[in-house]
Amino acid sequence: MGIGRRTAAEPRGDDDVRVERVELMLVSVPCKEPFHISSGPVTEREVVLVRVFSEGLYGLGEMPTFSEPIYSHDATLPSLMALERWFVPAILGRELDSPVDVGAALSGYRGFPFAKAGLETAVWDLAARRQGVSLARLLGGERDRVAAGVSIGLQESISGLLSRVEEALARGYQRVKLKIRPGFDVEPVTAVRQAFAGVPLMVDANSAYTLGDLPVLRALDELGLTMIEQPLGYDDLVDHARLQACLRTPVCLDESLHTPADLRKAVALGSCRIANVKYARMGGLGPSLEIHALARASGIPVWCGSMLELGVGQAVNLALASLPGFTLPGDLAPSDRYTVDDVIDPPIEMASDGTFAVPDGPGIGVELDPRRLGRYLVRRIVLTPQQRVLIPVVHGS
Amino acid sequence: MGIGRRTAAEPRGDDDVRVERVELMLVSVPCKEPFHISSGPVTEREVVLVRVFSEGLYGLGEMPTFSEPIYSHDATLPSLMALERWFVPAILGRELDSPVDVGAALSGYRGFPFAKAGLETAVWDLAARRQGVSLARLLGGERDRVAAGVSIGLQESISGLLSRVEEALARGYQRVKLKIRPGFDVEPVTAVRQAFAGVPLMVDANSAYTLGDLPVLRALDELGLTMIEQPLGYDDLVDHARLQACLRTPVCLDESLHTPADLRKAVALGSCRIANVKYARMGGLGPSLEIHALARASGIPVWCGSMLELGVGQAVNLALASLPGFTLPGDLAPSDRYTVDDVIDPPIEMASDGTFAVPDGPGIGVELDPRRLGRYLVRRIVLTPQQRVLIPVVHGS
Amino acid sequence: MGIGRRTAAEPRGDDDVRVERVELMLVSVPCKEPFHISSGPVTEREVVLVRVFSEGLYGLGEMPTFSEPIYSHDATLPSLMALERWFVPAILGRELDSPVDVGAALSGYRGFPFAKAGLETAVWDLAARRQGVSLARLLGGERDRVAAGVSIGLQESISGLLSRVEEALARGYQRVKLKIRPGFDVEPVTAVRQAFAGVPLMVDANSAYTLGDLPVLRALDELGLTMIEQPLGYDDLVDHARLQACLRTPVCLDESLHTPADLRKAVALGSCRIANVKYARMGGLGPSLEIHALARASGIPVWCGSMLELGVGQAVNLALASLPGFTLPGDLAPSDRYTVDDVIDPPIEMASDGTFAVPDGPGIGVELDPRRLGRYLVRRIVLTPQQRVLIPVVHGS
Amino acid sequence: MGIGRRTAAEPRGDDDVRVERVELMLVSVPCKEPFHISSGPVTEREVVLVRVFSEGLYGLGEMPTFSEPIYSHDATLPSLMALERWFVPAILGRELDSPVDVGAALSGYRGFPFAKAGLETAVWDLAARRQGVSLARLLGGERDRVAAGVSIGLQESISGLLSRVEEALARGYQRVKLKIRPGFDVEPVTAVRQAFAGVPLMVDANSAYTLGDLPVLRALDELGLTMIEQPLGYDDLVDHARLQACLRTPVCLDESLHTPADLRKAVALGSCRIANVKYARMGGLGPSLEIHALARASGIPVWCGSMLELGVGQAVNLALASLPGFTLPGDLAPSDRYTVDDVIDPPIEMASDGTFAVPDGPGIGVELDPRRLGRYLVRRIVLTPQQRVLIPVVHGS
Repeated sequence: MGIGRRTAAEPRGDDDVRVERVELMLVSVPCKEPFHISSGPVTEREVVLVRVFSEGLYGLGEMPTFSEPIYSHDATLPSLMALERWFVPAILGRELDSPVDVGAALSGYRGFPFAKAGLETAVWDLAARRQGVSLARLLGGERDRVAAGVSIGLQESISGLLSRVEEALARGYQRVKLKIRPGFDVEPVTAVRQAFAGVPLMVDANSAYTLGDLPVLRALDELGLTMIEQPLGYDDLVDHARLQACLRTPVCLDESLHTPADLRKAVALGSCRIANVKYARMGGLGPSLEIHALARASGIPVWCGSMLELGVGQAVNLALASLPGFTLPGDLAPSDRYTVDDVIDPPIEMASDGTFAVPDGPGIGVELDPRRLGRYLVRRIVLTPQQRVLIPVVHGS
Repeated sequence: MGIGRRTAAEPRGDDDVRVERVELMLVSVPCKEPFHISSGPVTEREVVLVRVFSEGLYGLGEMPTFSEPIYSHDATLPSLMALERWFVPAILGRELDSPVDVGAALSGYRGFPFAKAGLETAVWDLAARRQGVSLARLLGGERDRVAAGVSIGLQESISGLLSRVEEALARGYQRVKLKIRPGFDVEPVTAVRQAFAGVPLMVDANSAYTLGDLPVLRALDELGLTMIEQPLGYDDLVDHARLQACLRTPVCLDESLHTPADLRKAVALGSCRIANVKYARMGGLGPSLEIHALARASGIPVWCGSMLELGVGQAVNLALASLPGFTLPGDLAPSDRYTVDDVIDPPIEMASDGTFAVPDGPGIGVELDPRRLGRYLVRRIVLTPQQRVLIPVVHGS
Repeated sequence: MGIGRRTAAEPRGDDDVRVERVELMLVSVPCKEPFHISSGPVTEREVVLVRVFSEGLYGLGEMPTFSEPIYSHDATLPSLMALERWFVPAILGRELDSPVDVGAALSGYRGFPFAKAGLETAVWDLAARRQGVSLARLLGGERDRVAAGVSIGLQESISGLLSRVEEALARGYQRVKLKIRPGFDVEPVTAVRQAFAGVPLMVDANSAYTLGDLPVLRALDELGLTMIEQPLGYDDLVDHARLQACLRTPVCLDESLHTPADLRKAVALGSCRIANVKYARMGGLGPSLEIHALARASGIPVWCGSMLELGVGQAVNLALASLPGFTLPGDLAPSDRYTVDDVIDPPIEMASDGTFAVPDGPGIGVELDPRRLGRYLVRRIVLTPQQRVLIPVVHGS
Repeated sequence: MGIGRRTAAEPRGDDDVRVERVELMLVSVPCKEPFHISSGPVTEREVVLVRVFSEGLYGLGEMPTFSEPIYSHDATLPSLMALERWFVPAILGRELDSPVDVGAALSGYRGFPFAKAGLETAVWDLAARRQGVSLARLLGGERDRVAAGVSIGLQESISGLLSRVEEALARGYQRVKLKIRPGFDVEPVTAVRQAFAGVPLMVDANSAYTLGDLPVLRALDELGLTMIEQPLGYDDLVDHARLQACLRTPVCLDESLHTPADLRKAVALGSCRIANVKYARMGGLGPSLEIHALARASGIPVWCGSMLELGVGQAVNLALASLPGFTLPGDLAPSDRYTVDDVIDPPIEMASDGTFAVPDGPGIGVELDPRRLGRYLVRRIVLTPQQRVLIPVVHGS
């Protein structure tokens, strides 16, 4: 199909899109509360927005990397470099028949899925805008509202944790996810479990445990949790299979699922019973659709994870979460949850029942707010076919 | 132990090393022949040399990345950025009790194993120089010569391939490895097998196949190969296990083994019977020693792979290959194999029996040649505790 | 005085201002028409905006450099580098008693007057805002409206030129300035002179002539011009004195006047009878006030020149032009004259009588429009005392 | 003439040189003693070496900027940017008929004479090497040895100064120049005058005085000095003329002479009786030849000043100083005077009679030492016509 024309495979023709210009915008929005990593407090949410132009229209994407390589190797500045040097030049000036052509064009490059996803989602948005349909519809979404759960970070005290949970439930969130780590796990989760008996509850370990921690994980298994997310190694499928075999609670994988094939293998090994899907971790919406299809075929429920996206990425999340296989509440968040502001207008808001409207305007259904962009933009890089990034060959003589 | 003192675990004390200064040197040496990647011909071997200074001594390391992310995400410039922004500052000015402390200091950062290895190997070299022993000895090496095999890239014709093999055998190489890809596999390998009947022969697919190519891989299985290296997905353990179950020829894993734990899992799944060890892919010598120990315990022979290292990295390879578990010839190469020149003096040379001397001077046993450095240096970055990289916090208001 | 307190010289005390943070914003606004320079067409007006923060207030400045060093050495990117490396660090975290302290703090650095002016004018704006007075009033301005003349670039034909002049007069401009160069001088100026007999008319040569062109300059001398601007060398005072002695028409100097001392010398030599004052060429408002005072004492009328400033710089021009010595119409322009848009809101507009209102709000009296900033910002650099620019010491060993 | 062919003006033809490739090398060599500037101690001599390649030969030049804009606006990094962005692209791939074509090609760009000189001198060296003659001969030099004087910086005590002078005279220097500044002038100079009665003595004020300091300058006038160098404003000709009229001692101009025309004007005004020539301040050897010719015609002796050049620039100085008008000893220095090492091999040495041999090999007669380059190189930038610097056009939309 030509981008924005949903008809079946045709010869390339008038419908094809030529990528005329790509704009990369590094933005930095202050966080409501600093979050702490090994090198110190992080006070800014720093991501790259991608804008792809063609024939008077554009599409928007977001690369929701963290500033440092703490979730994966996808840190912001190295990933921006990959976009500028390799990924944007690979599609600049090219005719694209479909958004999935972006993934194909980048398939010779390994790694940097966040950068690939930032670019690829912008082309999806462009395709939907050209066709005048919402991204949700173009992806095959079926819901017009999607349910959200809250994710609560590590707290200093159990009483602090309990009041966070209470607040979140009052806000309407449909399930509660608690971040855990060795030393802050069974006791606080038990406390929450007891205080909020009927609430769907899950935990997220972000790879902080090993198989040596089986006793702790078994204790958690007694607490009636919806799932235990990514307890073991951040690239692991094998140990998770051994763990899942010991637990009744479903294991959910996050960091370990990079490709649709990873889910296929996880299913084969029995590594998980639930999957977290993040468009950025998957390298874009094309692979996200594939993993969704595979999960449905395998009876694996999926839900939409979060990289603390700003509004553009959050709108992509909402479209993705409207797909039929996303049967569990996602880590979806309104614009004012993590940062003092957003880059879109109007902001994304959550209803009092813990649901979000799936945007139904063309494309992702939200627009950059130039005023906010002016406030938070740090660097803008514009690439055209005449001005592709030039990579100097340097050597001595 | 203090760095360079082999005595057992002591309280930190006078022996500890303070990292006073780190120098990062981007060098670019012309290749003998361009090698072709998707974005065009590569004509320069561009790597980063790392020099760590302490108390009047220094240690050298090499980060043997490719310029583009085609083997893994570890491309040169993003990895240099990771060194400059995160990894060097994490150890600068710190007391290190042992080279393995480097890996511990960087464990909060995911990805970028090549960058971590460049820095960590420099600290190993420093430790060995302080103690006045060779790196090989410090690592526990047992051989004073190590055997090399040749790796022959994809050729345009079978006759061309045959003459390359003939040349290599005449040079003394002890086994022949042929790069294959779909369309250039059974036929040329059969031709080589027939022409050079007794020669140890293996193939390397660099992840170019899938399980759908089983008929081809089975045909290769008939050719009496030493091993088939990394036939399937570059992060895969599971499909390789299915494949290995179908083949008599040992599968050897390369790209798929990032950590010692990966080998443990590969053994558990039956994903391979041989392992390729590259210090850069493993994130340094500490993890390389661990995977070596695990391989020996598991009855998995290992051999030393190549990232087309220049002389500094090649010297590290020679030390590593002297360990007892490295029972197969490695992809070791003299200084003049891939590039027109090297950065060390004297160059690394191969004897006519296809072996290399393991350097027995202090540390890696080779020295940078300032004359060659002057010819090939592109950028030098010097970091001291007073001049650590400053990461600006930027945001609007 | 403390910044923003107009009382006389006091010991430093509570009124002093501490520069807490400086923001440098490279913006690029498309031009209405490309202007042509030796290296090709210039299609963007690229300047740096400076924002200086203190105690909850900020002041704005503009560095109106050209992208290339064609007017002086003050090109945009090298000047931005000077700000980032030397000039901002020289005042960051310092107590300033008065805006003129900025010039004093930078006096050890030669050149880069545009960069100095961008920073110093921001401190003037801050001082005026703190005091709650307009910049014009703080500088000693006496007019509330100032008169503008038009500057018309080199045209392809005389008929084209005549229609440009006609348009400008219809817009209300109070005098006409024609750009000339060898080969496009006497004939077109004569044509304009004849077509628009009573109109105040002047020419600007931007240093395109030498004393060898005396016959041409003498022919221009017959045309009843208000002045001939900068006919000779861009750093010259001496040849201009010889020329002025030969002409009845006043010579006006632009490029040649860098400091108040230059005007003193020009007066002594008889190099000019009129002076163009540009705050950027002078290195800021402090030196501009000095040259203004000296000009008045010497009976030299001055007028406000233009560097095609965007709105922030234009507002500074309006304040400056309100001083009593500015008795000739300036090269003042509304926001929509050269560029398709501006960075301030509301834009600067010219009345139908060719005059501009001098802003009477606090400081420069205009505000950045975040929406437009979001559209045109290319790079934002934020410097704080904790994050001053670190200049690495690099050397070999 | 074609480059390297001394025959007279011919039509462009086979002799013309095409600039195939330009290499810019930022090098940083530690100083023997730090020298102190307003922003702190300078411990490294950081300059840019330029190499221009054509038809298998190359020419070398040096841009001897200071790191900060303290002598003129010509600081190292902004000037390197000017080379990379504007000056090298202006000649890359062009046919040059003569080295003076470089100046012509750059004449549209104002300022940055050091950068222009670094590039232009490399083309002069190339021209001389092509012709197989020394640069001195190509320039019209007549001496094979040139005389040197010493330049002694500000000292902490008079006794310290006296011992520095004594040392210098023992080394053979033929005249002594003392740096002075208000507060360290009459007294120390008198002391030296008395202690070393017959020695040619001069002072250098680097623009530290004004006409208000006339009493001090008159006191110096009594001390039988060879000259007073650049006492007043760094761009001034006019005040120097007033000063010279009051003094018997010749005033020598340095900072104030940027172009041959400046000397013409200085002569006309009576601003000086001696001129300091520095190829870098003049923008290259073409303008240096012009100012030399003009000085001879005007009866103004000239001498060769110093920017603390490393060996490449020093070799250019020696060639220049061999011209007949250079009748006074120059600020020439051996390789080991200011820095711990040099970048050439063999180093430049001074004979015991205070003279230097003018190199008589082809071109500048010295060669870069790759070993030293390897030690001191910080950054290498290679530009070819295929890889010219690309200046992105960026703007919003």
